[in-house]
Amino acid sequence: MFTTFFSGSRIVRRTHSPSSKPIDYNAAPPNLSTLANAYLYDTWRPKAHVLPAYGQIGDPCMHYTSPSSGLFHVEYLHEGASGPTTSDLVTYTDLKPNSAPFIRAGGINDPIAVFDGSVMETGINGTPTLLYTSVSYLPIQWTTAYTKGSETQYLAIERDGGRNFTKLAHGPVSPSPPFAVNVTGFRDPYVFKDPQIDALLERANGTWYTLISGGVHGSGPSLFLYAQYGDEADAFQKWEYLGHWWHEGANTTWTDANWAGRWGFNFEVANHARLDECGASPNGEIVLTVGAEWSYDPIVPQVLDNREMLWVAGTQSIVKGALEFEPSMAGPLDAGRSAYAAAGKLLPATSQASRASGAPDRFITYGWLTGDFNGTLPFPKAQQDWTGSLLLPRELSIGRLDVVDNALAREKGSWRIECENGNGTLTLATLHQKIARELLAAFKSDATNLITQTGGAMSSSNLFDNSPRSKHYPMTASIIYPSDSCNTCIRAGFTILYGPHESTAIYYPFSNESLIIDRSNSSAAASTTPGINTGLETGKLRLFDIPGGGIEPLNLTIVVDSGVVEVHVNDQFVLSTWIWSWYEISRDIGFLVEGGEVEFGEVRTWEGLVDAWPGRLS
Amino acid sequence: MFTTFFSGSRIVRRTHSPSSKPIDYNAAPPNLSTLANAYLYDTWRPKAHVLPAYGQIGDPCMHYTSPSSGLFHVEYLHEGASGPTTSDLVTYTDLKPNSAPFIRAGGINDPIAVFDGSVMETGINGTPTLLYTSVSYLPIQWTTAYTKGSETQYLAIERDGGRNFTKLAHGPVSPSPPFAVNVTGFRDPYVFKDPQIDALLERANGTWYTLISGGVHGSGPSLFLYAQYGDEADAFQKWEYLGHWWHEGANTTWTDANWAGRWGFNFEVANHARLDECGASPNGEIVLTVGAEWSYDPIVPQVLDNREMLWVAGTQSIVKGALEFEPSMAGPLDAGRSAYAAAGKLLPATSQASRASGAPDRFITYGWLTGDFNGTLPFPKAQQDWTGSLLLPRELSIGRLDVVDNALAREKGSWRIECENGNGTLTLATLHQKIARELLAAFKSDATNLITQTGGAMSSSNLFDNSPRSKHYPMTASIIYPSDSCNTCIRAGFTILYGPHESTAIYYPFSNESLIIDRSNSSAAASTTPGINTGLETGKLRLFDIPGGGIEPLNLTIVVDSGVVEVHVNDQFVLSTWIWSWYEISRDIGFLVEGGEVEFGEVRTWEGLVDAWPGRLS
Repeated sequence: MFTTFFSGSRIVRRTHSPSSKPIDYNAAPPNLSTLANAYLYDTWRPKAHVLPAYGQIGDPCMHYTSPSSGLFHVEYLHEGASGPTTSDLVTYTDLKPNSAPFIRAGGINDPIAVFDGSVMETGINGTPTLLYTSVSYLPIQWTTAYTKGSETQYLAIERDGGRNFTKLAHGPVSPSPPFAVNVTGFRDPYVFKDPQIDALLERANGTWYTLISGGVHGSGPSLFLYAQYGDEADAFQKWEYLGHWWHEGANTTWTDANWAGRWGFNFEVANHARLDECGASPNGEIVLTVGAEWSYDPIVPQVLDNREMLWVAGTQSIVKGALEFEPSMAGPLDAGRSAYAAAGKLLPATSQASRASGAPDRFITYGWLTGDFNGTLPFPKAQQDWTGSLLLPRELSIGRLDVVDNALAREKGSWRIECENGNGTLTLATLHQKIARELLAAFKSDATNLITQTGGAMSSSNLFDNSPRSKHYPMTASIIYPSDSCNTCIRAGFTILYGPHESTAIYYPFSNESLIIDRSNSSAAASTTPGINTGLETGKLRLFDIPGGGIEPLNLTIVVDSGVVEVHVNDQFVLSTWIWSWYEISRDIGFLVEGGEVEFGEVRTWEGLVDAWPGRLS
Repeated sequence: MFTTFFSGSRIVRRTHSPSSKPIDYNAAPPNLSTLANAYLYDTWRPKAHVLPAYGQIGDPCMHYTSPSSGLFHVEYLHEGASGPTTSDLVTYTDLKPNSAPFIRAGGINDPIAVFDGSVMETGINGTPTLLYTSVSYLPIQWTTAYTKGSETQYLAIERDGGRNFTKLAHGPVSPSPPFAVNVTGFRDPYVFKDPQIDALLERANGTWYTLISGGVHGSGPSLFLYAQYGDEADAFQKWEYLGHWWHEGANTTWTDANWAGRWGFNFEVANHARLDECGASPNGEIVLTVGAEWSYDPIVPQVLDNREMLWVAGTQSIVKGALEFEPSMAGPLDAGRSAYAAAGKLLPATSQASRASGAPDRFITYGWLTGDFNGTLPFPKAQQDWTGSLLLPRELSIGRLDVVDNALAREKGSWRIECENGNGTLTLATLHQKIARELLAAFKSDATNLITQTGGAMSSSNLFDNSPRSKHYPMTASIIYPSDSCNTCIRAGFTILYGPHESTAIYYPFSNESLIIDRSNSSAAASTTPGINTGLETGKLRLFDIPGGGIEPLNLTIVVDSGVVEVHVNDQFVLSTWIWSWYEISRDIGFLVEGGEVEFGEVRTWEGLVDAWPGRLS
């Protein structure tokens, strides 16, 4: 995704000695936007996350596993597109010094910008080949008239082990949207193979397909399906339009109860996966991750309003001669307001990371946490010298849960009924997303300090006995609500980054089925500095009644990595956000309970995280 | 048309005082390529023809009559595209000083070159709007693999009365050839209206159509038909592909007897007209002018081999659901080897020129006489400071002739049988092309000297009694061959630009039915200077047996305009070429007769021509 707000300009380069005077995190913050450039470089910089050495990070995209090295290339938009490789999903090595890009805008087909793309690992001459959106005109946004030819799809081929991608010396391979379709967008081509499409459409086995994200003015968001056409000599220059693979009505929803946000008006960054319980499988269920753009009423042209990062599972079939996708369930991939544009890729069992960990084929996705709401927030970016980050890599799979067969389970939500078991229970299926196994293992094995906090039944908030010494850790916890929580005011969770001046509350008020992060007191800098967002973060989450009595536990994994906080719940729900905690002393953790009593499990906090960038100068 | 050989570079600017020493045309020429730049500027420069003030002229194209001024814009490729206006088809006024272009390459869609286009007089917002080929990659040639996206069709809108055309701020309106068609070319969009297509395809009256010239690798030359799609708000951004309107097999011919050259492998510069006996009419016969590219065997990639400028008339009908064109007759528009890329346009009766002359709607075409065989000839271009010229404007119409019904008339040639009259005669139809009436009238009315040479029966060659004092004139003549000429060696015609050292023979050897220009002794410079072509020019021409006995007369109009010589025969045949006569004394004219006796009519030579460019500095 990208919009009119994208500047593409390079942020002032990090200066490693920004100031002779160190920042005093024991004193109240000044107006941070008055500080010298790069002065805040370290203040909120995550250490275990993927982001470039400096500057703006845009959408993740273009990931691939090198067939020759087995390294996983994790890419993102940054002065074009840039990225590192990883052999373990834990540490990363920049492809080039200073995260310099492997492809830049400025060619014949992309004079203005490089937008998202995806890589065919065995492309032209068997070489990894990038299909990406080459941009010739801006602005591009669904609220405005679409400029013909502004987005085209174009090829570049890997050189130097991925340190460069050479644009092919010809025009776009998909030079325009389908004829006379008045699109709201036409970008972010996602390449994939799909044996079912091969069979349904009688295409050669192993055909490459591409979904292009967009929508139709006055009609709604869409994914357009294309197929590789011709033989090897065609060098992927021809992509046959197979139709409007998925379309939803403008401004509609999967369900008005907000279990899956809104379809909105325009899709972006759609990814295609086939998932089962173990991970990725050619015969698995179709799962898409997709960004949806929408607006409150009235729509104001060129004002970026709302974006949601969704997932959707479903089936495809031939309807009136054309292959169409129909959702069976959908939900948010990340409920965070700054989380968007997730990009995933099949990580094969043969990759270096998976060979070492023994993991099967997996679909690994990295979300994007925009640092300034796509440019709309006056965050002191120059002072920080970097903006935005990727989120931790997640493994996607299909998860199942046996629940009591009741109205809660039968509601149309972010799950589907997999099996009516006939014994008063249902087996529900939903999307599971888990922090990559290697990474979570490394967080624990490499921890410098493990803090164990005893749980138990609690009806009031209390600080932990011991606090972390840093703001870098994952913590795991569980909360069991009483069976009669439904009509109560009970809420429980944790207070983190707590101190005399600041605190952040993460809790689940049972009756409104939402995971909430209250940032209203998260940052002392918010009162001195524009652009420090303290808005509430919230995401819809249901805890089901489980067979044998009781309510499904709320299992939390909260990762605090300086400014980035990710809250993972029950392997299926994630809410990620920025917490701009200022004071060094704001490190305490506490139980949060109001309106009743809950049962906390033991809480473990593994301090330290890992330095994802051992090769970078610090 | 354009090829890999096009440099697009500006020729060294004319210096108005190229040398202190005037050229001595009474002495033998030196090696002209050793002279100073621009030294030869005046030597062979035509005065009555259209060409830019200096530099290279490429294809004529983009002509239109301004709806507001009624002026006819006569355009050509030149540092982009440039051109003058004319109110009378006689004199021209440059739109800009120094023939500076109204459009240049270098935009987002045409970074490399501007190729041919055509103008909708009432385009966007009723303003003249140019649809042209925007070029992103070179080389482009039918002998090589086609670079995807190298040619796209794009819009520009008239500003400042045509002195500028502003490219629209969006991508190409026809960004690629039809899907998966492996084209040899895809350029030179020619816009037109056609009530018959409106009716056959149930389109709105007055729909704009476009023919795009090209071909298909391994299959042959083609014209692709598109229609304006949508309403005014679409601003001509959408052109619907209506199919392969005309296709001929690769390397085939209309007839192997060479009455219409070869269809070749790739079409270029196709124009569409509707003609009747008076000129242009919406209900007239479909006549195309089209450039055909071909090669001798074996085809050598990127070697420009042969091009022919053809016309073809025919009908269109719906075949298997698609509109297809089928030729009914075809022939060369100009038989000269350097003549190519003619470009015409409907000149309405309401134009300034036609209002003054009383002419009806006409289709006026200007051929192009390349000065260096598209760059393959090492002509001393820098010394001349200009290269190539347009040919005189011609009015196209359908001509008819009653002939004896015999095998000659019934042969498949550059005519068709219009009517079997049942009395031993046939009425044949063919394309007529006449020098624009205003121009021919001006040549006569503005002549500084009229030389009348008595004709009569002759069996041997003789010089005229009086010679022109210059090399600027039209001459008109007629030759009647005896009825028994068929199996003789009789040939007759004229020697022009004749002197002690040089002469050029223009004659018709009856038995091989060809009009020939023998240039072998045309230029003394040919022996001192590379690139002065002395090759034979020849074109097939039949003189029919006419009712009442005898053979159709050979009516000649020979226009000598310094280096440019045009031979027009019987209003239907033209052969134009360069004659690089050097000596001032090479001005005599003579009758040429060999192998028998013919009857010459009175020959008139109107000396002077007109200065087409009164506004240019001389």
